[in-house]
Amino acid sequence: MRMAELSRVTGVSVATIKYYLREGLLPPGEVSSPNQARYDDSHVRRLALIRSLIDVGGLSIADVRRVLTAIDTPDVSMHDVLGAAVHALTPPRPAADSDEGYQKAAVMVDELIARRGWRLGDASPTRAVAAEVLARLDSMGQYEIIRALDSYAAAVETIAKADLAVVAAVEGRDARAETALVGTVLGDVLIAAMRRLAQEHFSAQQFPSSTG
Amino acid sequence: MRMAELSRVTGVSVATIKYYLREGLLPPGEVSSPNQARYDDSHVRRLALIRSLIDVGGLSIADVRRVLTAIDTPDVSMHDVLGAAVHALTPPRPAADSDEGYQKAAVMVDELIARRGWRLGDASPTRAVAAEVLARLDSMGQYEIIRALDSYAAAVETIAKADLAVVAAVEGRDARAETALVGTVLGDVLIAAMRRLAQEHFSAQQFPSSTG
Repeated sequence: MRMAELSRVTGVSVATIKYYLREGLLPPGEVSSPNQARYDDSHVRRLALIRSLIDVGGLSIADVRRVLTAIDTPDVSMHDVLGAAVHALTPPRPAADSDEGYQKAAVMVDELIARRGWRLGDASPTRAVAAEVLARLDSMGQYEIIRALDSYAAAVETIAKADLAVVAAVEGRDARAETALVGTVLGDVLIAAMRRLAQEHFSAQQFPSSTG
Repeated sequence: MRMAELSRVTGVSVATIKYYLREGLLPPGEVSSPNQARYDDSHVRRLALIRSLIDVGGLSIADVRRVLTAIDTPDVSMHDVLGAAVHALTPPRPAADSDEGYQKAAVMVDELIARRGWRLGDASPTRAVAAEVLARLDSMGQYEIIRALDSYAAAVETIAKADLAVVAAVEGRDARAETALVGTVLGDVLIAAMRRLAQEHFSAQQFPSSTG
C-alpha cells in the first residue's frame, strides 16, 4: 500500500508517519519508484505498536526508539529486550537521594530480594527505583505501606509468573520479544487500572459510610 | 521555622516553595511580621508529599493540586480521595478510540468485573482505561496477554486487599486519606518495579540461554 493508505488504515497522519520514518522508528517501505514507496502489514503492525507505547504507555519518542532497537536487533536476548524496556521506563533518580535514607532503603530492597529468593543481577536500575520509592515512603512516615511490602511482593510474583507464561505461549523470537515489551508496558497500565477497580470494590465493603 | 530553614530541611529550593505557595499546593505559613511567615512540621510533611507525587509518581502540578484539594476537603470521603487520585492519574483517552474495537473491549471489561464479582459505579474512568488497553492489545493481536486477564485480576485483588488493610491500619481521616493517595500513586511505581525484578528472576529460570 502507499503511504496515504497506510495512514487511512492506521489512523496515523501522513506527517506523523514521515516523522517516524525520519526518526527510524518505522522501517522504510520498499521503493517502487523514485518518489514512492510501498508499505505492508508489518508497517501497520509497527505503527499500532508505536502508538500504543506512546499513547497508553506514556513513552517518549526516544524511549520508543530504544525499545524498538532492542526488539529489532536479532542477537539481543529476550532478557535484554525486557532490560531495554525497563531502562526506557525507569525514571532518572533525583540526585538529592544519594543520602542516608536512600542507602537504608536500598538495603531494604536487598533484604526483600533475599527473602523472596529472587536471583538477580546487581546493577538493575529497577532496584534503584524500588529503593527510591521506599526511601520516599520512609521519609513521609508511611510505615504501614512499607510493612505490607511482602504482601505486595507475593502478589507481584503471581503477576510475573503469568507474564512469563504469556511470553512462553508466543512462537518465534520477534513476536515473543514484542509480546514481552507490550505486556510489560501496557500491562503496567492495565494492572494499575484493575488495582483501582478492585480497590473501589473492597473500599465500598470496608468503608460503606460516605465519611470513610 | 522561616522559609530558608524549611528549604534547608526539605531540600526544596526557596523559589520552588514560593511557587507551591502561589499555586496553593502548600498552605501559607503563620504570618509573624509583615514580611515574614513561620512554617512548621506540617509544611515539611506536605513538601515531602508534593515532591514524591511529582518526582516518583510523575504527576503534574495540576494533578497534585487536584488530589491535595480532595485530601484537604474534610467532607470528601475516602472513596472520593481515591477517586480524585484516579482521575488525576487517568490519561485522557484518545478520541480515535470511540470505535468498534473500543466498544468490544469495554464489554470485555464489564464481563471481567462481573466474573470477579466487583461491585462498582458505572462511570469510573478506570473502566475506560482498562478498555483502552484491551482494545490496543486486541488490535495488535496480543491475544495471549488478553487470555491471561483473569490471572492478572486475581493477583490484583490480593494487592487491593493489602491496600485496604494498609489504609485501615492508619488512624485519623487525614492521615488515612494521605496513605490511600501515597499508597496508590507510589504503590503503582513500586509494584511495577517489583514486577520487573520478579520477571527477571523467573525469566532467567525459563530462558536460561542468551538467545531467549
